[in-house]
Order: sequence, then structure tokens, then C-alpha cells
Amino acid sequence: MFITFEGIDGAGKSTQVNKLKRSLQERGREVLTLREPGGTPVAEQIRELLLEGRHDISPVGELLLFSASRAELMEKVIVPALESGCDVILDRFFDSTTAYQGYGRGLNLDMLSEINRIASHGIRPDITFYLDLTPEDALMRKFSEKSLPLAFESEELDRMENSGLEFYQRVRSGYHAIQQAEPQRIVTIDALLSPAEIHRKIVARLDDFKAASGRKS
Amino acid sequence: MFITFEGIDGAGKSTQVNKLKRSLQERGREVLTLREPGGTPVAEQIRELLLEGRHDISPVGELLLFSASRAELMEKVIVPALESGCDVILDRFFDSTTAYQGYGRGLNLDMLSEINRIASHGIRPDITFYLDLTPEDALMRKFSEKSLPLAFESEELDRMENSGLEFYQRVRSGYHAIQQAEPQRIVTIDALLSPAEIHRKIVARLDDFKAASGRKS
Repeated sequence: MFITFEGIDGAGKSTQVNKLKRSLQERGREVLTLREPGGTPVAEQIRELLLEGRHDISPVGELLLFSASRAELMEKVIVPALESGCDVILDRFFDSTTAYQGYGRGLNLDMLSEINRIASHGIRPDITFYLDLTPEDALMRKFSEKSLPLAFESEELDRMENSGLEFYQRVRSGYHAIQQAEPQRIVTIDALLSPAEIHRKIVARLDDFKAASGRKS
Repeated sequence: MFITFEGIDGAGKSTQVNKLKRSLQERGREVLTLREPGGTPVAEQIRELLLEGRHDISPVGELLLFSASRAELMEKVIVPALESGCDVILDRFFDSTTAYQGYGRGLNLDMLSEINRIASHGIRPDITFYLDLTPEDALMRKFSEKSLPLAFESEELDRMENSGLEFYQRVRSGYHAIQQAEPQRIVTIDALLSPAEIHRKIVARLDDFKAASGRKS
């Protein structure tokens, strides 16, 4: 299975990715977890360029850099892993591009859909968990983590503060639009629930999904 | 005017870019010369990633990295320069993508044309000079430069040797196909002529072009 997680920074994606990985492994599955951008030597260098925030990158340049990282990761890591029967759990995928570059930065959605198709080699996730959180709640979480130096991801907080809440509100409405367009693939979960409760919902949805695919095949 | 130079490594593009720059400046024009990939801080880092050759990059990843560099350069440098009335001379542009990634590496030409349009913001050169050289002659030139340490571009030679002559033969046939599709824009010049002779032909074609645009406007 190819499973992706989506949501704004602070929604708790990486916590859920790790919980799901352990739970699938306990069922005897081989699981590969990855996060975008990054995952190959070239993609990690692209990640640095994109996230270090030293540079002011043009919106189309940013789009093409994210997409280059994705193309690398798909071809070198994800496609071979899926072909070998491994489950792949990915923290962010092309829905992030649609939400951030499309709804957030205002790039043309048809163009994005074309670029997304090219960069992902036409492969779509089996299921996508979208952890829904308001930007205000996300910021609050980030600030409360600030007092815990080890947990504090300064880079993400900096970007969030620089881009402003309006940007993240547009991103969130983008995620809602994507979910409405593909209700079969995208499962929305309230990110304010406890991590254990979110994990239970995710596992239940995956069991439903597998039961449905089992009946189909 | 927006003028681009194309051709395989060793065809003499940078020599002609410099000669043309001086000759336009002598006529009182403001001239900006640039080479792809590169030209902004982000684009220069992309250039390093692409050309240092340390990494094996997937063909689609490579395409998107070149395109990200182009989008940056267009938005930050070329469009503002053209708008301010400057002439821009560019060493490689989207025809390189079509020739190298399309004909050389076999990527889908329709996809390339779409990506090229996005990365160049829909802007096309007024005129493109293609310096035509066989890969065999290019390699010979490179080897003869090897005895002159200062002139020797080891990075280009390494890439050329690694990719093999067949690759450069496909690239060259790609340039020929592009020229046949757009004979108005693309002027082919034999790269084995002397630099002074090539320069004379370029200036003559530009004078013709300006006379024709003058009559039109």
C-alpha cells in the first residue's frame, strides 16, 4: 500500500506516521517511511535549498524544485519499494503542492495538476490521511513547543511566522477543496483529537480499505 | 532583444556570446549576458547540483531542476532586464532542454514542451543561434584544450565522456529537428568556421532581423 499524510505544519503528521509504521510492522508488514521533500542525496540537497529560508525563491521555481525532489524520490525509492511489496508511508506528497503552491501561492491549478502527474510518474496514493488543524491552533502548538528546546523545529516556525496566517488559511481551504474532489482517497481527521485516538481512526480506516479491496479482488 | 545561443559543449557558444556582447555595446546597447543553468543564488546552487556530476539524477528530476533554475532566472533577471530595454544574450535556453532531455535522454517531447512553457513564463527568444558541430569534432576540441590547463573545462569533458558519443549524436539530431520546426527563429551556423567568421554571420543576421522588424513596426 502507498499511504500519504497531509496537513499544515504542527498537525501531528510525523507522530502518526511513526505510530502507523509500528502498527503495520507489528502485523508483519515491511514498511518504508519517508518525508517530502528529501529522501535521496539530490532530493535532500533540494530540501535544504527550499527549507533553509536563506533565499527568496520565485513561486514557479519553488514548484519545480519540490517536483524535482518528488521525481527523484519516486523513481529511486518509492516505485522500487512498492514493486518489492513494501508498504510506503509518505509525510507529504502532491496534495501539499496543490494546497501550498496552488491555493497558498495562487499558481494555476491545471498547471499544478500536470506537473504533479509528471513528477509522481502518474502514481497516486491508495489512501491519504489529512490531519485538519486551524493555522491558529498550529501556531499555538508551535509556541508551546518552543519552551521544549528538543522538540522545537525553529525552521518550520520561522516559515510559518514569515508567511502569515492568511497564507495558511488559504492552504487549509485548499486541503478542504482537494478532499471534496477526491472523497474516496482522502480521509480527513480532526488533528485536535489525542494522538492515540487519531491513530485508532487511521487503523480502522485502513482495515476498512483492505476489506473493501479484498472483496473487489 | 532576447537572443539565445545553442549547441553541444565545445561548439564555441561562450566565445560568440562575448563577441556579440561587445559588438552590441559598441553600438550603444545595454547588454546582459547569462548562461543556463544559473544566474540567481538559488539557480547557481541548482547548477552545482546538476553539473558537479557527483550524483546520479533521474531524467525527470534533472528536467525539473533545469526548469526550476530557468524559472528563477526568468522571473528575477531576464523579464526585468527585457522590460527595462536591455538586450539579453543567453547561453542555453529551453532548446537545450528539448535537445538534451528530449532527444538525448528520450523524455516525452509534449511533456517537455509543457514544462518549457511553464518555466520560461511563456516568453520565447527573438532569435536563436545554433552552432552546429559533430560530437567527434567537439571531443577533439576538448582534448586539444586539455594541454592548456587554463582553458580546460574538466567538468564538461567528464560529462561528455561519461555520456558517450551516441548521446551527443542524439542531441545534435534534436537540434536539427528543432531548427526544422522553427526555421524563422533558429539560425544554424557551422561551428567549424573561424570565430571571426561566425561572429560576422551572427551580426549580419541580427541586422537583417532588425531591418525586418523595423519594416513590420
